[in-house]
Amino acid sequence: MLRNTISLFLFLFFFSFLSAQNSVIGFSTDNASEQLKLESAFEKNLNATNLDNWMQRMAAEPHWVGTKYGEDNAKWIQKQFKSWGYDAKIETYDILFPYPIERVLELLGPTPYKAKLTAVPVDGDPFTAQGDALLPSYNAFSIDGDVTAELVFVNYGIPKDYEELEKLGISVKGKIVIAKYQGSWRGIKPKLAAENGAIGCIIYSDPQDDGYGQGDVYPKGAYKNKTGVQRGSVMDMPTYPGDVLTPGYAATKDAKRLDRKDAPTITKIPVLPISYEDAQPLLAALEGPVAPTSWRGGLPITYHIGPGPAKVHLKLTFDWKLVPAHNVIATMKGTDFPDQWVMRGNHHDAWVHGANDPVSGMVALMEEARVVGELAKNGQKPKRTVVYCAWDAEEPGLIGSTEWVEDHKKELQQKVVAYINTDGNGRGFLGAGGSHSLQAMVKEVAGTVKDPQTGVSIKERKIAKQMVSGGEDTFSLYALGSGSDYTPFIQHAGIASLNLGFGGENGGGEYHTIYDTYPHYKRFKDPNFAYGVALANTAGRITLRLANADVLPFDFKEWYTTVSGYWEEIKTDADQMRKAVEKHNKLVKSNAFVLASDPQKEFNEPAAKKDVPYLNFAPVQNELASLNTTIKMLSLTNGIQISKAKQEELNQKLIGAERMLTAEKGLPRRPWFKHQIYAPGFYTGYGVKTLPGVREAIEQKDWKEAQEQITVLSNTLQSFNNFLAELNAIIR
Amino acid sequence: MLRNTISLFLFLFFFSFLSAQNSVIGFSTDNASEQLKLESAFEKNLNATNLDNWMQRMAAEPHWVGTKYGEDNAKWIQKQFKSWGYDAKIETYDILFPYPIERVLELLGPTPYKAKLTAVPVDGDPFTAQGDALLPSYNAFSIDGDVTAELVFVNYGIPKDYEELEKLGISVKGKIVIAKYQGSWRGIKPKLAAENGAIGCIIYSDPQDDGYGQGDVYPKGAYKNKTGVQRGSVMDMPTYPGDVLTPGYAATKDAKRLDRKDAPTITKIPVLPISYEDAQPLLAALEGPVAPTSWRGGLPITYHIGPGPAKVHLKLTFDWKLVPAHNVIATMKGTDFPDQWVMRGNHHDAWVHGANDPVSGMVALMEEARVVGELAKNGQKPKRTVVYCAWDAEEPGLIGSTEWVEDHKKELQQKVVAYINTDGNGRGFLGAGGSHSLQAMVKEVAGTVKDPQTGVSIKERKIAKQMVSGGEDTFSLYALGSGSDYTPFIQHAGIASLNLGFGGENGGGEYHTIYDTYPHYKRFKDPNFAYGVALANTAGRITLRLANADVLPFDFKEWYTTVSGYWEEIKTDADQMRKAVEKHNKLVKSNAFVLASDPQKEFNEPAAKKDVPYLNFAPVQNELASLNTTIKMLSLTNGIQISKAKQEELNQKLIGAERMLTAEKGLPRRPWFKHQIYAPGFYTGYGVKTLPGVREAIEQKDWKEAQEQITVLSNTLQSFNNFLAELNAIIR
Repeated sequence: MLRNTISLFLFLFFFSFLSAQNSVIGFSTDNASEQLKLESAFEKNLNATNLDNWMQRMAAEPHWVGTKYGEDNAKWIQKQFKSWGYDAKIETYDILFPYPIERVLELLGPTPYKAKLTAVPVDGDPFTAQGDALLPSYNAFSIDGDVTAELVFVNYGIPKDYEELEKLGISVKGKIVIAKYQGSWRGIKPKLAAENGAIGCIIYSDPQDDGYGQGDVYPKGAYKNKTGVQRGSVMDMPTYPGDVLTPGYAATKDAKRLDRKDAPTITKIPVLPISYEDAQPLLAALEGPVAPTSWRGGLPITYHIGPGPAKVHLKLTFDWKLVPAHNVIATMKGTDFPDQWVMRGNHHDAWVHGANDPVSGMVALMEEARVVGELAKNGQKPKRTVVYCAWDAEEPGLIGSTEWVEDHKKELQQKVVAYINTDGNGRGFLGAGGSHSLQAMVKEVAGTVKDPQTGVSIKERKIAKQMVSGGEDTFSLYALGSGSDYTPFIQHAGIASLNLGFGGENGGGEYHTIYDTYPHYKRFKDPNFAYGVALANTAGRITLRLANADVLPFDFKEWYTTVSGYWEEIKTDADQMRKAVEKHNKLVKSNAFVLASDPQKEFNEPAAKKDVPYLNFAPVQNELASLNTTIKMLSLTNGIQISKAKQEELNQKLIGAERMLTAEKGLPRRPWFKHQIYAPGFYTGYGVKTLPGVREAIEQKDWKEAQEQITVLSNTLQSFNNFLAELNAIIR
Repeated sequence: MLRNTISLFLFLFFFSFLSAQNSVIGFSTDNASEQLKLESAFEKNLNATNLDNWMQRMAAEPHWVGTKYGEDNAKWIQKQFKSWGYDAKIETYDILFPYPIERVLELLGPTPYKAKLTAVPVDGDPFTAQGDALLPSYNAFSIDGDVTAELVFVNYGIPKDYEELEKLGISVKGKIVIAKYQGSWRGIKPKLAAENGAIGCIIYSDPQDDGYGQGDVYPKGAYKNKTGVQRGSVMDMPTYPGDVLTPGYAATKDAKRLDRKDAPTITKIPVLPISYEDAQPLLAALEGPVAPTSWRGGLPITYHIGPGPAKVHLKLTFDWKLVPAHNVIATMKGTDFPDQWVMRGNHHDAWVHGANDPVSGMVALMEEARVVGELAKNGQKPKRTVVYCAWDAEEPGLIGSTEWVEDHKKELQQKVVAYINTDGNGRGFLGAGGSHSLQAMVKEVAGTVKDPQTGVSIKERKIAKQMVSGGEDTFSLYALGSGSDYTPFIQHAGIASLNLGFGGENGGGEYHTIYDTYPHYKRFKDPNFAYGVALANTAGRITLRLANADVLPFDFKEWYTTVSGYWEEIKTDADQMRKAVEKHNKLVKSNAFVLASDPQKEFNEPAAKKDVPYLNFAPVQNELASLNTTIKMLSLTNGIQISKAKQEELNQKLIGAERMLTAEKGLPRRPWFKHQIYAPGFYTGYGVKTLPGVREAIEQKDWKEAQEQITVLSNTLQSFNNFLAELNAIIR
């Protein structure tokens, strides 16, 4: 037995020795040790108290774009960055921003009701009692309007809801629709309503979705009380985000601007968000068919669809004016590669106080920047340039970041290694999305950051959660659609991007309401800012690795697995669509729909659908097969051994890798969106569509376009393949 | 072209000639023609007005077992049967029936509330205003009790809800539970609550399930208003139904009776049903964890689980007395085979007025019997004896029918060809359940009955509905569990049984409330009694076919397909259970459950589970294979050609077929239930468990018993196989 014990001991010793041999993707062994020491020092310096204090300062008053306090915040942030050793400046754009002047919503009958449109102050939260200083609840970039019509309830107001309405023989033409928040990005609701002929749109928060149906309401709990209203933009961001008057170029003082009436991303019909207290009388006044089971919410009423007899009057006017959006850009030049930039960003504007959205992410970014500055002062300056950004006007439509990216696009495409975004943050699990070429690196970092509550790594905890929820036991990045400031970077400029944040144990209904305050945050989101620190730690390590790596830590093996997975999904979807159409047509032919329907209820007999053709998927299949071969041969790890000069050549090329996945023409009908692998869905808004050209054409049953987009995608993949072969040539 | 047209014409002529060649399962060609003529005459004589008038008479006053009006109804029914030419008698049993004397439910704190326990009269329905004549809302066979304790919300109070509570670290020991109606037969809720240590049980109707969440409430619509309460039995019927004091034998005047304290089917803890108006203050007073998403109902509150701080006092006392249960038994002797009986039944007792349950089914049965009598008077008497039954005391626990079957068991087993049950009925689709040996015959009949609303056959409409709901395009019977008077026939006596009814377009929340009245029925259930007539037509044709067939229309091919399907399900379930345990244990081992849980919430770390062993399924597999061979060789159709004497031998044997599927020992721990193919689930109540011995042992993870039950089942199948071989010998 003794001998075995000794063997085991030696064995364990050998292994612990091996693992002490630090290995970090993109670093030589020596540099890896240095880097880990640096990151360790970085982590030790992070201080939760700073986050707490800064949140109290920034969220003290409402600070939407164009406000005095918003400008104050920008200047104060600039001052902080300067004090930490950054070259910090404010870059300002003049953007169109509507402020609500008149908001009227009335139920004219059967029983008249005038919507209150005002959330009440609550005990224990003085911020909610700031009265006129609070931004009235509205949807930015709703058109002005004064409409009166019968009401129709359209569930979430997404495509499948209109399919259901058609089955029931109900049209929204000439009507005002009322839709629940959630189920899609809010801007999709008025867009689809208008496409279907509606003349007005009301959006309300159903208590089942983020009110008492989810948990106790504020101030007892974190969820939405009956008066809370979610503000938010309804600009048609899936067409293009940013200033509505300057599509694709910067809203500088002297920029040529569209006429407002020609701006395609302002809604076609007036839109107003309301509380569930205001929604209940409207919904209760509807007759007509009872809504399908899945449409019914948490109000104590029977949900009917209408139309009418509820008749409503909606009147909205806005003050349409240009306001200054102040982006704070703080730069620390890299010692070795000043023209290679690692960018970090978070927005600073809020709808009201925005303690959670965006301040919780902003203060984490600032603490990260402070410590990076601190280390620099101690001689540990990053090798590449790091740029910290605090964006303005994210809330109305990613405007600050979009205008800035449009302004500096050429330079950014040459210099930016990656853009790392954060936004609201809270207690829970790591959520990480982004370019899959960065997946291996993010996974490595996630393995080094400790979860504040359990002590295991944030990677391990994330995977545990996935497994318990029935998912995979591997770490992966989700694909980016839209919804925060990474959009112009990845979707428009083709810059590798990440979006990071913690959550899942921070539920609430405060999003974009007057209740997103410091007291709410402290009670329900991240009481000790432990996850704020974890976010700074995670994003900071990623920033520092990208800044100091010998060879930029991109990896295309995991990229390939993921992207070929997306492709398989699309093929499966097309097959399932074909089977569904076959089944549908069989039912039509056998008259089953009619026979199964209740003769006492309105029912539109469904028509037979056109068969789903077989598409020629081969061009993409072949390119993927070829890519697979190239990627198998490509070992970026070997880049560690090549000469410095060759490494610089390699890195300079790697900066362009993500751009190879874009097409200058952009996506059909929305040329601003260049990326061919990821895009926000045209009819989902924030929700991502991967391989969007092909996928959306199939979803829309435009078979001609699908076949064209297969060609576009295969061309993109071919260029990417050639590009990767060139990388290989440098390394060999 | 001419020649082709002529060919086509001849071809069509030939085919219409062929289909005019009537073929009816179990009939010679000549007799088939006669039978179809008879059925056609039968159908023509059915008169909806009778159903309407009779419902008004029977549902005029409350008529639960033991009431004066219930006895009046029985006598009136007897009189009708006599007038139609039946030998009708009343057979009475003295059964234990509790009447509520004291019902107190109070929320003691934090905010006191006294439950009203009274449903309100509504405009337009004078029956709801009969005050003291209405039976107070209660659960029959709740034990007396006076308990005070903290409250715990247990969702539907079914096994998986207690598993969830365990995960959350919440015990109901010493508490009073509040459970939603639905999700199981109601009696399961107090049974499981008591098994888990609770001392009282409240059951309420959540508005999401049959109140405003489903549709407008009474009197505007058909659904449950805030004061409606579902009455119902909580007797432990999965152990044995019928009189609680006379298990397995008839409750005759002089029968030896158990002491009430020894009666195993009375609940162990007091139980009271309440309205959602009374439930809301109780649920709103709970704290503790927010209930899981799927537990939350339609009340405008956040559903918490507790325990407490809500503290409730529940006091119930009952008048436990013997009351007479009057079954009406109406017989018309068969001309050719007086000792072969075809039985039809429906109960006549109701909780209150019972316009829908049971009167709508009762009046259909009566109209059917009237016309059968009419035809008999015109010389078209059935060849076999037909027996029409109107059961009493179904509501408190299938008591009238059970006592009668227990009383006459031997005779019934020798004589009854099949028992055909009906109960509440309404507009919609045919629902048909029963012995799968009768499936082919029922399918054939369903093909001949027209749906009143669409004009296609009820078979075609039923299949259309199935297909649109994503199901099969074939006709099948569902398997019988429990819930109406077929139970003693099939489960205890082993008599082939059917249960028939229409529904699906007759939704409402009136079940077992004071709102199940004639006005409610006329507005929402079957306004013109068209489906009452369709039910009489369907059940009548089945009765007449069984009564007149040359060879009894049993078929074992479809039986085999169905039963071997059940067997495959069980094997799959066992495999899935094994995989689920493996996955669970992997998660336990990797500590994933702990890491995924919210450290700020109570959480019981799940323990590793015992591996699911591989069972020896071979004995049943082999018997099924052998049965398959026998059944393939067996052609009952050939029985049409054999001699009358042989036919009689064959038919007499067929009467015993279903009995071959029973085992005298019965199911484990419930010997009253003899059937080895169908049984109500021990923990589902009404819900069927097919191949119950093996299935429930596996579900309860009792592997030893599962292996024993595999042997029992294979023995049953072997006897059945031998029996079928004997049939074959008669035919050849």
